[in-house]
Amino acid sequence: MNPVVAIIGAGYVGMQMAAMLSNAGLRVIAFDKSQQRIDNLIQGFDNYNELKQIDSSSIEFSSEVNALSNANYYIITLPTPINIHSVPDLKYIKDGAKLIASVLKKKDVVIFESTVFPGATEDVMIPILESISGLKSGRDFYVGYSPERVVPGDELHNYYQDVKVISGQNNIALQKIEALYQDLLSLKLHVAPSIKVAESCKLLENIQRDVNVALMNEFSQIMGKMDIKMEDVLAAAQTKWNFLPFKPGFVGGHCIPLDPYYLIYQAHQYGASSNLISTARDVNEHFPDYIFQILIQLLSNQDISISGAKVGLFGISFKPNVSDTRHSLSVKLYQMLQGFNMRLYAYDPLVTIKNDDLNWVDWEAMPRCNAIVLIQQHDVFIQNGLKKLIEKLDSNGVFMDLPGTFHKQSKDYPQITYWNL
Amino acid sequence: MNPVVAIIGAGYVGMQMAAMLSNAGLRVIAFDKSQQRIDNLIQGFDNYNELKQIDSSSIEFSSEVNALSNANYYIITLPTPINIHSVPDLKYIKDGAKLIASVLKKKDVVIFESTVFPGATEDVMIPILESISGLKSGRDFYVGYSPERVVPGDELHNYYQDVKVISGQNNIALQKIEALYQDLLSLKLHVAPSIKVAESCKLLENIQRDVNVALMNEFSQIMGKMDIKMEDVLAAAQTKWNFLPFKPGFVGGHCIPLDPYYLIYQAHQYGASSNLISTARDVNEHFPDYIFQILIQLLSNQDISISGAKVGLFGISFKPNVSDTRHSLSVKLYQMLQGFNMRLYAYDPLVTIKNDDLNWVDWEAMPRCNAIVLIQQHDVFIQNGLKKLIEKLDSNGVFMDLPGTFHKQSKDYPQITYWNL
Repeated sequence: MNPVVAIIGAGYVGMQMAAMLSNAGLRVIAFDKSQQRIDNLIQGFDNYNELKQIDSSSIEFSSEVNALSNANYYIITLPTPINIHSVPDLKYIKDGAKLIASVLKKKDVVIFESTVFPGATEDVMIPILESISGLKSGRDFYVGYSPERVVPGDELHNYYQDVKVISGQNNIALQKIEALYQDLLSLKLHVAPSIKVAESCKLLENIQRDVNVALMNEFSQIMGKMDIKMEDVLAAAQTKWNFLPFKPGFVGGHCIPLDPYYLIYQAHQYGASSNLISTARDVNEHFPDYIFQILIQLLSNQDISISGAKVGLFGISFKPNVSDTRHSLSVKLYQMLQGFNMRLYAYDPLVTIKNDDLNWVDWEAMPRCNAIVLIQQHDVFIQNGLKKLIEKLDSNGVFMDLPGTFHKQSKDYPQITYWNL
Repeated sequence: MNPVVAIIGAGYVGMQMAAMLSNAGLRVIAFDKSQQRIDNLIQGFDNYNELKQIDSSSIEFSSEVNALSNANYYIITLPTPINIHSVPDLKYIKDGAKLIASVLKKKDVVIFESTVFPGATEDVMIPILESISGLKSGRDFYVGYSPERVVPGDELHNYYQDVKVISGQNNIALQKIEALYQDLLSLKLHVAPSIKVAESCKLLENIQRDVNVALMNEFSQIMGKMDIKMEDVLAAAQTKWNFLPFKPGFVGGHCIPLDPYYLIYQAHQYGASSNLISTARDVNEHFPDYIFQILIQLLSNQDISISGAKVGLFGISFKPNVSDTRHSLSVKLYQMLQGFNMRLYAYDPLVTIKNDDLNWVDWEAMPRCNAIVLIQQHDVFIQNGLKKLIEKLDSNGVFMDLPGTFHKQSKDYPQITYWNL
């Protein structure tokens, strides 16, 4: 068998997978329904900005369904967002399943990599694949689930170093998935005993992170009310051998803030409580409210009028050293401040797609502000140092340093009002 | 200066501290208001069963306040429980402070080790010490706070290996505490910048553990409803490099289930939300309800009548390999089952103080049961193996294995109904 692999959804995760398969010498078709995205990728331009060192020249790109006709493996790396009511939105992977079903042949293998709730693959996706193709899964074609564990901005962890969890609807499905991931790509695999286990495992991993940051966010607010410095408490707690060094901050991106809702949704379906997981989400979603309150307090302390105050938000992406602003709570903070007639300036040298209706400015156009809120600790900010950043701060201005990057340097600038989490 | 150290509260933590100080050649007076406890200790009998290898022969034991008159250091290791409304009960350390205040001299040092809410030392204890002694703290005598980090049943972590967090009300207090802990005992110290920070740090450490187990308990219940094995999900998740290997189970003992309420109490006082921390408590406190439900389900499946069913609870202490049943959720489960007219048998070879109004039986007196619920994974259970334990199980009986100790062995006994978390 000479596998031809179709990647359905040539986004951030899909392109990493496509590059890995292509580097292993396999024929790879990267499909995306956006012709714009395909055109960009053909021209070597990846606007998600993460394929710098990847040679994608041998990948076939297409937005046409007939490009998939030669594939015998389909790997679905489509987004699984939530709607405005925080309910899972399977639209994209359903569309992906319909697309695959229209070209599906006997012996083909379909592997879902998108994060879903337990049961989605077997109870939602397989029926779509079967009804449109007229084929029977597990007999005519084979379905598996293998959660992606790509970490944006993390160079240490990737497909080759880490264990990949796989699952299949039966043993033949598993063998075919192992043939691809283990025999051809030499990945380290963990075989989950069922598709639902593999689906659940990804949710648990991300929910664990969400809950742990939520605890830090709640604890830091209690400490704030009591005038106790959270960083001092963390420094002391970290001297215990088993303390887990999480920190307070904004939880953003297209995984951690969304995945818990997939489990919450399914817990409701099955009549199970998800009170802790929901509460953690709530704490993290409302953490910008706390930062907002502190900012208003600090501006008041300095007798700076809220209305008309110039506030620069620095580091808008959803985590340090990435260019992506999806589900960044910086945007939520911006919108809150906007309701108070502040003059806002969004600055992030890493962000290339400047949407979200923010008033994006580059460094030269950034005025001197009454307050600067540093949100993400990009390396470039660390390298430039506090001195550079406060060039854009009024002499009696407020510098809010959410990651605490410049805690030590701030002692050298006693004229500014410095605050960190 | 030749320090004479009084340990106020010769309980589990106090005796560890007393032994360490005595081993370092210091004169140590271990005070406990219970004459019974003092008599036991004088006779070398520690009913908390943890002083096996400690030579306590040079420690002076007393329940008389005048025994303290020569001390110049007072270390308070008294319990800080909660009342039935889950509100912190400072009665014991308040009494301890009153006692010390009655003998307090100039230059004396008072160190609180008990877990308290941030502010308790400065806002509650110092006023008691000052008003009764007529001395001024920080000038006439000195107060500090240093949380104990003793882990029952853990041989790897102790005072000598681990970092001890200390704090003092001013620099002189700190110097005097350092003189004791660092110069005389050679402990590794972390100096917290304030007493409130040291108080908060202990709470954060224990709350972090409570919240992480609560997540596992909630997640396992969701998985249970969906017929997904939690252990399979954990096995898959643990292949991720940064997954934190917590497991579901009963959270008991005199620290983890109580300490969060100290912070919750103070958060309310200061108008801060503690919703996540409270929810975690709630999930953990109600985990026995879930185990109860499963047991009823399994008995029903076997057509065993609930009323009159013989149920053995094995491993009653609050964690593996300790003898202590304080705040053990096994007792809560026992009480729930009692409401359903079951015939209950509590078995724990490690527990020496058999209170809690349980029907304690030893191995010989244990009848064959319709169900056995193994709660704590004591080493002795592991050594004896499942074969031994199911000698006490009816042929169509149910074996519930909360820690999952015998998951593999259970395959050898297909006749029993085996369930694990």
